Amino acid sequence: MTLRNRQWLLARRPRGVAEEADFQLVEEEVPALAKGQLLVRVHFLSLDPYMRGRMDEAKSYAPPQPLGQVMIGATVGEVVDSKHPGFQPGESVVGNGGWQEYFVSDGGGLRKVETSAVPASAWLGAVGMPGVTAWYGLNHIGKPRPAETVLVSAASGAVGGVVGQLARMRGCRVVGVAGGSAKCDYVVGELGFHACVDYKAPDFQEAFQAATPDGIDFDFENVGGKVFDAALSRMNAFGRVALCGLIAGYGGGDLTLHNVRAILVRRLRIEGFIVSEHLDLWPQALRELAEMVAQGKLKYRESIAQGIESAPGAFLAMLKGGNFGKQLVRM
Amino acid sequence: MTLRNRQWLLARRPRGVAEEADFQLVEEEVPALAKGQLLVRVHFLSLDPYMRGRMDEAKSYAPPQPLGQVMIGATVGEVVDSKHPGFQPGESVVGNGGWQEYFVSDGGGLRKVETSAVPASAWLGAVGMPGVTAWYGLNHIGKPRPAETVLVSAASGAVGGVVGQLARMRGCRVVGVAGGSAKCDYVVGELGFHACVDYKAPDFQEAFQAATPDGIDFDFENVGGKVFDAALSRMNAFGRVALCGLIAGYGGGDLTLHNVRAILVRRLRIEGFIVSEHLDLWPQALRELAEMVAQGKLKYRESIAQGIESAPGAFLAMLKGGNFGKQLVRM
Repeated sequence: MTLRNRQWLLARRPRGVAEEADFQLVEEEVPALAKGQLLVRVHFLSLDPYMRGRMDEAKSYAPPQPLGQVMIGATVGEVVDSKHPGFQPGESVVGNGGWQEYFVSDGGGLRKVETSAVPASAWLGAVGMPGVTAWYGLNHIGKPRPAETVLVSAASGAVGGVVGQLARMRGCRVVGVAGGSAKCDYVVGELGFHACVDYKAPDFQEAFQAATPDGIDFDFENVGGKVFDAALSRMNAFGRVALCGLIAGYGGGDLTLHNVRAILVRRLRIEGFIVSEHLDLWPQALRELAEMVAQGKLKYRESIAQGIESAPGAFLAMLKGGNFGKQLVRM
Repeated sequence: MTLRNRQWLLARRPRGVAEEADFQLVEEEVPALAKGQLLVRVHFLSLDPYMRGRMDEAKSYAPPQPLGQVMIGATVGEVVDSKHPGFQPGESVVGNGGWQEYFVSDGGGLRKVETSAVPASAWLGAVGMPGVTAWYGLNHIGKPRPAETVLVSAASGAVGGVVGQLARMRGCRVVGVAGGSAKCDYVVGELGFHACVDYKAPDFQEAFQAATPDGIDFDFENVGGKVFDAALSRMNAFGRVALCGLIAGYGGGDLTLHNVRAILVRRLRIEGFIVSEHLDLWPQALRELAEMVAQGKLKYRESIAQGIESAPGAFLAMLKGGNFGKQLVRM
């Protein structure tokens, strides 16, 4: 039986806002396995904001996504054929399969995961890169103490939701920022944040101030732009900022920061980080997160697009905040 | 004999750029000493950028300078009368005497200094708060390794000059930014920086890039504005910024930062600090700095205004970069 594999390639680099025509869908035959190789059928593809950065040619922490190649991306899937002694058909594996339905691997970068207590898709979210990002930024940069105020932007997202719940477990006052009342209701009602401010509301500035009566001690910053400006204006002395994402800047162009004097006057520490550079801490983080998910202590929500055809549309919508929770594509 | 003491008070809070009329010169009689008090005759008053911040009412790390009170300021002077068992006439003391010719003290906050190997005025500069600021930011925030590139803005100033020389002693490549070719020549020729870029020159951006061929690993930031923007654009991965001053923003109004994406993409750490919060480290810092000055290894330059009448003018000129090295007033 010949297997057909559909793949999304990067067709061209975006000029400013990315669009569907930047991607191209192609189909190829799955090649026969050589010795030492295995074939993975992808069940879920993770769509993450960092991918937008890779589509540009600009100097960054990782090489740009090559043109004409399969878009990179984390996947969870099932081994369907194997000539590799370490992998058996039926096993679930997480890896960087990319935007495609099947991929051939020599086992490098694949991690077997157990999908009975922790659902397969969660290994791409709360118990995957987003969860570890939240865990690292909170525990290794922010280190908030009980009763301190933690601000989380993109609070209903895959990273933000975990940050807020972990901070709440540390005894912090947790304030989220999200787009729209449905997300804010979820952040407070389901995830247990103490408050959530809608950045799209006309009274954002007043509501933001009212939600942070004691200022902010730690800002887990996913967004940038006016949300970051507002956070800086409310930071307490010796506050920390973990700069995890600047999704407000993905439309291209310069992103400016206001209230810069606060960094000096309030002796703030702002730290950018990339979680893939702290691989030594992943096992501990994944162990803790998996246990919390298995016990129902750590909640998350997913937006699941159906079928590989939907990947670019779902990705572009996510960059505008159209997702609600972790954005996935079910293949 | 009755002693007359002239003093500068803060007459009103500046609106935007500070001006001479914000200050008022008054004269009073030096009061008789009570038991446990001593009288200091001020020889040198230190003028520092932080004073501009104190003139505002805005929330800051220290309470604002009160209206109608003697302007705060570090001084070095001589005990001329004493009813305090710990101080004898003729001893040199550093303290916060303020903008005046004499002050009465109960000894609190006074530090006796030795002025044979280290000149009295140096205790307000290279071996005073500015020197310790440089020492702390370099050794405790930047921690540059040999061959790393260190950028120092306001490089000919009291803080910047020490930063650059200490960095050079650590084996770093040291690049200064200063205003005008005379200051740049001094920074390279006298202080031993490897390069200095004139921020007033029309080709500033190109010259800045040329002077940092290997990027920047540590930015000791005294200025803000376009110099800080340029620094961020050249930072290497895992670069550090010690945010010590934002003199570009002392004219009032918001100070914005560009190239914010660099903080994330290059995993930078930006840290604001106030050296007076690290008093535990001052003895070590002062010991090291005094030894280097006494041995001629640490150079500095002073701009000395003559007479108390000149203080406001010298202060305002300094805020515009009119000084050349540590700004002092000789009483």
